Formats: sequence, C-alpha cells, structure tokens
Amino acid sequence: MPDVRLLEAFPTPSATPFVIEHVSDEFTSVCPKTGHPDFGEVVLRYQPAPAGTPAGERGCVELKSLKLYYQSFRNEGIFYEAVTNRIRDDLAGMLKPAWLQIITKWRGRGGIRSVIRADHGPVPAHYLGV
Amino acid sequence: MPDVRLLEAFPTPSATPFVIEHVSDEFTSVCPKTGHPDFGEVVLRYQPAPAGTPAGERGCVELKSLKLYYQSFRNEGIFYEAVTNRIRDDLAGMLKPAWLQIITKWRGRGGIRSVIRADHGPVPAHYLGV
Amino acid sequence: MPDVRLLEAFPTPSATPFVIEHVSDEFTSVCPKTGHPDFGEVVLRYQPAPAGTPAGERGCVELKSLKLYYQSFRNEGIFYEAVTNRIRDDLAGMLKPAWLQIITKWRGRGGIRSVIRADHGPVPAHYLGV
Amino acid sequence: MPDVRLLEAFPTPSATPFVIEHVSDEFTSVCPKTGHPDFGEVVLRYQPAPAGTPAGERGCVELKSLKLYYQSFRNEGIFYEAVTNRIRDDLAGMLKPAWLQIITKWRGRGGIRSVIRADHGPVPAHYLGV
Amino acid sequence: MPDVRLLEAFPTPSATPFVIEHVSDEFTSVCPKTGHPDFGEVVLRYQPAPAGTPAGERGCVELKSLKLYYQSFRNEGIFYEAVTNRIRDDLAGMLKPAWLQIITKWRGRGGIRSVIRADHGPVPAHYLGV
Amino acid sequence: MPDVRLLEAFPTPSATPFVIEHVSDEFTSVCPKTGHPDFGEVVLRYQPAPAGTPAGERGCVELKSLKLYYQSFRNEGIFYEAVTNRIRDDLAGMLKPAWLQIITKWRGRGGIRSVIRADHGPVPAHYLGV
Amino acid sequence: MPDVRLLEAFPTPSATPFVIEHVSDEFTSVCPKTGHPDFGEVVLRYQPAPAGTPAGERGCVELKSLKLYYQSFRNEGIFYEAVTNRIRDDLAGMLKPAWLQIITKWRGRGGIRSVIRADHGPVPAHYLGV
Amino acid sequence: MPDVRLLEAFPTPSATPFVIEHVSDEFTSVCPKTGHPDFGEVVLRYQPAPAGTPAGERGCVELKSLKLYYQSFRNEGIFYEAVTNRIRDDLAGMLKPAWLQIITKWRGRGGIRSVIRADHGPVPAHYLGV
Amino acid sequence: MPDVRLLEAFPTPSATPFVIEHVSDEFTSVCPKTGHPDFGEVVLRYQPAPAGTPAGERGCVELKSLKLYYQSFRNEGIFYEAVTNRIRDDLAGMLKPAWLQIITKWRGRGGIRSVIRADHGPVPAHYLGV
Amino acid sequence: MPDVRLLEAFPTPSATPFVIEHVSDEFTSVCPKTGHPDFGEVVLRYQPAPAGTPAGERGCVELKSLKLYYQSFRNEGIFYEAVTNRIRDDLAGMLKPAWLQIITKWRGRGGIRSVIRADHGPVPAHYLGV
Repeated sequence: MPDVRLLEAFPTPSATPFVIEHVSDEFTSVCPKTGHPDFGEVVLRYQPAPAGTPAGERGCVELKSLKLYYQSFRNEGIFYEAVTNRIRDDLAGMLKPAWLQIITKWRGRGGIRSVIRADHGPVPAHYLGV
Repeated sequence: MPDVRLLEAFPTPSATPFVIEHVSDEFTSVCPKTGHPDFGEVVLRYQPAPAGTPAGERGCVELKSLKLYYQSFRNEGIFYEAVTNRIRDDLAGMLKPAWLQIITKWRGRGGIRSVIRADHGPVPAHYLGV
Repeated sequence: MPDVRLLEAFPTPSATPFVIEHVSDEFTSVCPKTGHPDFGEVVLRYQPAPAGTPAGERGCVELKSLKLYYQSFRNEGIFYEAVTNRIRDDLAGMLKPAWLQIITKWRGRGGIRSVIRADHGPVPAHYLGV
Repeated sequence: MPDVRLLEAFPTPSATPFVIEHVSDEFTSVCPKTGHPDFGEVVLRYQPAPAGTPAGERGCVELKSLKLYYQSFRNEGIFYEAVTNRIRDDLAGMLKPAWLQIITKWRGRGGIRSVIRADHGPVPAHYLGV
Repeated sequence: MPDVRLLEAFPTPSATPFVIEHVSDEFTSVCPKTGHPDFGEVVLRYQPAPAGTPAGERGCVELKSLKLYYQSFRNEGIFYEAVTNRIRDDLAGMLKPAWLQIITKWRGRGGIRSVIRADHGPVPAHYLGV
Repeated sequence: MPDVRLLEAFPTPSATPFVIEHVSDEFTSVCPKTGHPDFGEVVLRYQPAPAGTPAGERGCVELKSLKLYYQSFRNEGIFYEAVTNRIRDDLAGMLKPAWLQIITKWRGRGGIRSVIRADHGPVPAHYLGV
Repeated sequence: MPDVRLLEAFPTPSATPFVIEHVSDEFTSVCPKTGHPDFGEVVLRYQPAPAGTPAGERGCVELKSLKLYYQSFRNEGIFYEAVTNRIRDDLAGMLKPAWLQIITKWRGRGGIRSVIRADHGPVPAHYLGV
Repeated sequence: MPDVRLLEAFPTPSATPFVIEHVSDEFTSVCPKTGHPDFGEVVLRYQPAPAGTPAGERGCVELKSLKLYYQSFRNEGIFYEAVTNRIRDDLAGMLKPAWLQIITKWRGRGGIRSVIRADHGPVPAHYLGV
Repeated sequence: MPDVRLLEAFPTPSATPFVIEHVSDEFTSVCPKTGHPDFGEVVLRYQPAPAGTPAGERGCVELKSLKLYYQSFRNEGIFYEAVTNRIRDDLAGMLKPAWLQIITKWRGRGGIRSVIRADHGPVPAHYLGV
Repeated sequence: MPDVRLLEAFPTPSATPFVIEHVSDEFTSVCPKTGHPDFGEVVLRYQPAPAGTPAGERGCVELKSLKLYYQSFRNEGIFYEAVTNRIRDDLAGMLKPAWLQIITKWRGRGGIRSVIRADHGPVPAHYLGV
C-alpha cells in the first residue's frame, strides 16, 4: 500500500536555487480494472526550498526512502492518472519545494503508450514540454 | 466505420491541471484514392477538464475505449488530413478539455512520410513543435 | 526539368488551423558545377489556407503530384540554395498558405553536410530551429 | 580531497561573448552513506569574462587542470547535491564568468538515475532545460 | 597555415531571408601545448546578406573553398577557443551576413569533450541552445 | 481472406545462385481469439530457382503482387504460427525455390513480443539465427 | 507463487519444424536476500513438437497463459539463476519440445547487469551466443 | 546507360590476401515498370587477385571510376535483381578476384524493403549472412 | 588493493549446464604509468560447475561480493592486460567452472579504445567474437 | 612520414592466450591522387606471443607509441589499401604475434565508404566477418 511515511528528507545543502531530477524506471503498480500489472518510469523534478529557511531543513528527498516509497505501490490497484497526482501531492506536501514536477511514462498496453505530467507551483517553461 | 460512440470517459481525478498523452502506433486506415492501407501513429495530448466541474465528470478518455475507437477506422477510406481533424473533433467534443492536440505520423508512401497536427483550444507553446 | 505544373491541390478539409508536414528523403538533383548528382531530403511544412476561403479551395498539395514535382528535379543542374528557394516559391505561389517552410538536408560532399531553410510568411517560432 | 588550487586559468581570447562547454563522463566520488563509489558525468557551461577586462585575464579554465580537479573528488565522500554546488562555487569563484552552469548526471543506484543542475548568474533560457 | 584567402563567395540567390548550415565533421588542427592533433566538427550557420544589396553580391560561401579553408588549419597549433573565434571572424568579415554562428565540437581528450559556440550579430533564439 | 492467387511471378534473371529478401513492416491480421488486430513485420528470404530451368521461368515473386497478397490477410482471424506457416507454404509452393524462409515479428501484446520462423528446404546456416 | 498450472498449450499447427520466440520485458520477482524487487526480460525460444505426434497435441504455449505464469513470480523471493532454471524446467516439462531455451536479462543492481541462459535439448548453434 | 567501360583498375598492392569493401548509399536507377526512381545502397566486397599475378596487375577497382560507373545507372530502367547481377558480372569480369560479392539494399516501395545478394566465387562463410 | 578474499560463492542451483553473464560498467583502476584513472566495463561469462559435484558446492559467484572485489581495484596501479588476466585467474581459481571468460572494454585514452579478452577452459565458439 | 621506429613493446603478461583490440578513430592520412585528407578508424586485433617465449618479451604494443605511430601517417600521401597492408606488416613484424588483424574503416568520399581488412597468421573465424 502506498505509504508516504516511508519518505525521508535531508536539509537542502545550498541557498542558491538548483534543480534535482530523479528518474526511476522500475515502477510497477496494478491496473484496478484488469488486475494486470502496469510498468512505467517516474520522473521527479524539483527545486528544493533553499537552505536557511524552515522548509529547507527538510528540503531534499533521501534517495533510498524514495525508492522504498515507489516500491510501496507494487501491489496497489491504481490508475495512471491517480498514481501521478498522488506522488505529486505526497512529495510536494513533504518537501515544500519552490516547484515540483512528476512525469510518469507507461509501457504500452493494447498498443497505446501513455505519459502523464502533473506540476506543482511555478514549473519553469523549459521543463513543460515533457 | 469510425464510431465516436465507442469512446467512454471517466471523471478527472484532480482539480489541479495536469497533462495526459496517449500514443498509439498501431493505427491503420485505407487510402480512399488507391484503396491501399495506410499505417501510422496517433498522438493524443490534452489537459482534462478539472475535477469539480461538470465537464470534469467525463474529463478523461478511457484507454480501452480509445483503442476500440481507433480500430473503427481500420477499413475506412479516409485521407490523412481528414482522419486527424475528425479525431480531434470527436475527442474535443466529448471531453471538453482545457486544450487538446492530435498529431498523426504516417509511414512513407511513394518515399514521402507525413505528419499532420491539429490543435483544439490554447495548446501550450512547448507542445507546438510536433 | 522542374515543372510546377505537375503540382495538384485539393480543398482544405477544415476551417480550424492545422499543420501538414511531408518529408521526402529521396530527392536528387545535379550539381551544376561538377555534374555529379546531389542527394537530399526535403521537408515541407505549412498551415493550409482554411476551408471556406477561395485559397482554401486549393489549399492542400496532393501527395502523388508532390512526388512527381520533386522527381522533375532529377536531371536538373541546380545549387542547394536555389533548389530550396525555388520549391518554396512554387509551393507558396500555388497554395497561398498561412505560412510555409522548406528545409533541405543534403548528404555530405567533400566531408560537409548542408541544410538550407527557407520560410514563407509567419512561420511559428517552434518550427524555426531546423 | 577536492582541491580548488588544482584549477588553472588562461586569458579569454576574445572580447566578443562566446560559450564554452566541457563534458567529462569519467567523474567518480564516494557515497558518504554507503561507502560505495558513485559514477557520473559533469557538464560545465559558461560564458567567460571578456578579453580586455581584469576577470578576462583569467577567464577560461585550462582543460588539463580541470581534469585533475575533477580527479581530486575520487575518494571523497560527498552527496550528489553537494558535489554539484561545490563545483559550481569553485569554478564561478575563480573564473568570474558572465554566467556558469554545472549539470551532473549520475548512473542509476537502486534503479534511480539522478541529474542535478546548479546555475550561477544569468544563464540564458536555452540552456535551462537540462 | 589558416588562410582566409582560400574562401570564395557567390551571390545570394534570393532577397527573401533564408538560413544556410554547413557541418564539417573532418576538422583537425594541432594542440599548441602537447603537439597532438585535435579532431572535431565545425558547424557554420548564417543568414546571408540578401540579393540586391552590395553584400549580397558575395553573400554565400562557396562549398569547396570552405573545405580548403578548413583544411588549412590541419597543421596549425591553435586552441579550441581561438579556432572558433577565428573562423567566426574570417567568415563574418567576408560574407557580411545578417547573422552568423560557429559551433565547434571536439572529441574527448583526457576524458573531456568540449563544445565552443561563437555568434556574430543577432542570431535567432532558436539557434542558441547548441 | 488470404488469397494465394494474388501472387505473380517473373523469370529468374540469372543462372548463378543469388538471394532475395523482402521485408514488409506493414502486415496486419486479426487475432481469432480476441478479435483485436495484430501488427507485425514479415521477412521473406529465398534463393530462386535458377534461370534455364522450368521452375526458373516463374522463379521470382513480383513485388506488387506480394504486397496485395499480404494485404489479403488484413481482416482474417489467424494465429501468429498459422500465418507464418501459411505464407511459407504458399510461396514455396508457387516459386519452387532452392530454399525459402519466412520470419514474422509481432508487436507486443500483453507485454510479450513474438517472433516465428519457418523454413523450407536447405536454408543456409547464416540465415538461421533470426 | 510461481504456478505451472497456469500454463496452457495448443496443438502445433504444422509438422514441418519451425521456431517460436516470445520476449517478455515486464518480468519482476523479489530478491530473497534484500527483499528488493528485481526487473528483467525473459526470452523463450523453442521448436515445438511437430503436429501428428502426441506431444504435438500440446506443443505450443498459449500466449496469455504464459503471461499469467510469468506474473505469478511477482512476489516470489527467488534468485536469477533459480528463476531461469525453473522456467526452463516448467516449460520443457509441459511442451516436450524438440529443444527450448530460456534467457533472462536483468537490469543493473549495484552497477552490475546480469544475463542467465539455460537450454533444454539440442539448441541449434546459431541461438547459443545469447 | 550502364557502361562498364567507365571502370578503371589499379594493381593490387600486396600478395597477401586481404579484403576490400566499398559501400555506396547514393545509388539510383529507374523502375522499368512504373517509371519511378528507385533508391538504394550498393555494397561491394572482394578479395583482389594477388600482386605478382597477371590478374593482380588490374586487381583493384579505382574508387572514382566506380562512382561514375554507378552513376551511369541513373536513368536506366532496370529491376533490382538485374542491377545486382549485372554489377556482379561487370566487376567480376574486370577484376578477376579470388571472390566477389554484391549486396543491394533498396528503400521501401509500397511498404516493402528489399535486399538482393549475388556472389561470385568462394565467398567466405562469414560474409554470407547479409 | 585487489583482494580475492572478498569473493564469495554459492552452490550451483542445477545440474543441467547453463551460462551466467555479469556486466559491470563501473570499473575503475589507475594507469601505473601516468597515474591517471582508467574507466571500463568488465564482462564475466561462465558455465558453473554443476550441482552435485564438489566444485558445484561453490559454483556461482555472489553478486555483491563480486562488486566489492571489483571495487578493490579502485586505487590500484595496473595495466589493462594485467587486470584482465588477474580477474580471470582469481575467478577461475575460486569457481572451478566448466569454462570462464573475462572481457574488459576501456574508454578511449589518447583517442584509442581498447578491449581485452581472456578465456579459461573450453569457451564455446559463439562467445569468442567479443 | 610513417615511422615504424616509433612503436614500442612490452612483455606479454601471461602465458595463457588472450586477445587485445585497440580501436583508434582519429586516423588521418592524405589521398595521393587528390591531395585531400582522408579520415578513418583503425582496428588492431591480435593474440600476443605468450610470456615465457623470446617473442613474448616484446609481445604487446605500448599504447602511447601506437598513437604516435598512427600520427606519423598524418601528412603522408598513401592509398587506403597501402595504409592497411603497411600497418599490418609493421606491427606483425615487430610483435611476432600468434595472429594479427588490421581493419581500416574510411569515411565517405564521393558518397562511397570503404573498409579494408588485412590479416596475418591464423586469425580465428569469429573475427573474420569485419
């Protein structure tokens, strides 16, 4: 079951804005309609809250905890769109970033490949084109 | 025969804007001039009507119904340009999205490959360059 | 000999603006200086005059006629730059499009590959970067 | 131990602005948490201080010294985010460029690949999309 | 020895603005520091002075002369940055183009690949991102 | 309905053995179990009966007729394995080749891509590894 | 739990030998040592028992049942080597093929990608080189 | 008109056997049936007659003459199979090589790409698999 | 310092011969001549001693221990050829495999990329061509 | 001027046979006919004379000396075939290897790319197919 409590954070190491991108290509969940597994890639991009602010104390997601959080979707029945929105909400809620973006890319099912993109806050224009 | 009634929708799962892209690379129809089959890829991109609005109740196209709708073109004699405009109109009419874009990419015929792009509503700039 | 009369047009099928791209990778002409053949790819992009206007009656170039028109350059001695400008002028003159763009990409000669881009009318920014 | 004194500079050869990019795909450091080595690529982009200015006297980083500087991270325990910010600060401090950008791209660990981007000064928009 | 007198020009064939790109991937010079050869690719992009103007009389560089000019660097000891600026200045001086851009891309040396970009005049935004 | 009578042949142009390969990547039929279309590529390789023999009079399959024959499977419900064996038998029966090989490569269905290979006669070892 | 009873077979459609390959790139199981999921691709190649023999009555594995069988490993703790040998034994036991080959290709873990190949019966030489 | 007299030869520079391969991807001829141009690639491989033998005096084909010979097919109406056999015969007749191989690879026509392979003499096994 | 005692083994899970391949693309050591780091990929292929034999009790190398063994070369000054032979000897000595093969692939140094292949025992022909 | 005295050797580090491959993609010489530079890649493969034999004392070519030897062709007018045979003879003469192979791959000239392969001694079959 997806569990946001698995996520851990560490302090942003700089007050100068910078951008972090983590790409996991080993995401899997279950289609609630057919019961078959879905496989995809999750792209997380964000500008962490800067060092020297309260949010910056917990501004960056710890990599291993992110992996465990993603793994908690393994046997969950959930649609593409809901996965994407949920991950965006969970991470944005915890990290309080300047902005954050989740893109999920799903392998073909019935000959159709899908990409879902959900943004939080003022994502810069150059990251909008998937 | 292309049949818009095959399309089904489900409610948009979030009030925050997000973007959905479905790529089908198994599209085929028939050239009305030569009777030979055409093969191509159809890209659908849209921002669904948000949750909490009437249009949002039927804001997202269901994936399997989309596949069946595409399959309904299989033996239809129809030009590239007309296919593209028709799919755009059918989906935009049903989903009432914030914006929607259809791009069809056709395999070469006589040494010429073609791409047709049809937009509905204010498609963001970063999706315009094919 | 290049012959614009080979080109045929058909009515634009929609009043909503859309974009058409045809890529021919079997273009060949002859270098007027050395007499050796040149080989290249011709990209044509345009937004046709809309349905319901006089120009829209002949707004879209017919694909087979485009192929024959390109073939008419086969034994013509003509420079890269002149080919590109000529095709742009011939097609823009016939189709009266909202805008039109020709890009020719030539295989290496003497270790140098060339690309020539010629625009007609207000080509959108996202198509300018070759 | 990372050592900024390894870096050497030479005068910018032109007063006209231009852009320099150096890509090193042989970067390695050590994860401070697990003790395992990390492997990545470091992209450095900058517009050097122009010739004819004091900063321009030492406006361009010498390539071999850059390589040695990168090698000084080999056995250092340091996180992705800290590496990226440190390289940016070291190089920006020495070169006083018009602008400067560091992008680090890390091979997958636990199925997650990471990219970190840190900018200094007014990096042009066309370099922001990683 | 690099010799600008090798370059020849011919009249721009059109008064309508268009863009020319020549890519040579067989460039070689010598590192003045180590004496070892450097190998790279030179991209030249420009919008020629239009037909009907004095500069347009000699607005386009002739391809074979460009090749010979590049070959004249073969045994010259010269740094990446200086090569790039010199080619830009030589070609801009002769062609008087609306704008012109030189990008040199160098194979790895010591595990570092380099790209240098030098512009002349108002290079359009869509050509700036290398 | 698949129709072998669509196939036409022409005389082998040489008595010296040679090999012909035709690859069609626009094959489609229908899954008899689900009714959904299947899409694939068909590779035909053969050494025609030599000129100067009775079989050599009709030793080579005519390309356009081969295309029409493949198109005749368009709405046929037939399994991968049966398609492959049938095409092999139809072509081998008509051409009487020294040897002949059919390889069909199918796009993924349910996350599984399939390849079927059927040989006729002494196919040389170097063509056996798919 | 891996369950061989999920597998179903259908009669081989031809008495002439032919080869079937099914590639599934959505295989996942669990590492029994760390509890983390493993992701990989499973290649199955075999020459089915010929039509007209008892084994040929159940000579070909049905595709959907193969998918379900692979899915039954989803939450099983099992090493790479054991997975590969088990799949080989299960399928060879059921299909009684002329020969059969299983190749599993695993995504990197700790920077190491693995491939395991297990054969049953006289696999032809041209399939042995992974 | 294809003209074998365009071909020139030079003496084989070594008595030790070696292999020469020339790949031309700018071949074009005309389909005698439709009148449309065909485009393809011609691979020539051979082991020249050794130095110190009469045939070795004219054992290697001169590269520029080969290019002109290929160009002489430009406006010739000739089928794929005939082109391949003719080039093989012309070159084998002139060079008297230990062995020689011609492979022609043709761009798709009607969705079908073709490859024709014609050998002369004992072509080694490792060159037979196209 | 390379340390063979880091390697651990586990029992071969099957008496039927099978093949294991582990590819590590994060190998680094130090050039003993220049002191600069070398970066490469190490391919290990072997057929383990079968289950039911004394050697089979320790027939398969444990993956994490292999990673640590490779990491022990990190600061060792050692040539390409010596690394390759040493790894082969260490692993063959411990595993007593039916056969074993080490291939190291090194990134370019001074414009030259190197590959070293060392075999132990009767490596099958299909694995010999690198 | 090509100078074999630039080559240096070191003792083979093992008595067990192994294979070394060095690929240089920065080779350049001059066409003796046109005076234009040629650019190519040189592949050297060999099995060194074993340790413990007189030839093994100088069995392996030192990498930097190989690079300087290749550079000595930079301004030499020499044909493809002669370069290849000369390098083979120079290296085979010095190293006395079990076998040795030189493959040169040349960039296109006049639309034709060339590959020359020259062997010394019993090159194994799996290295013969270029």
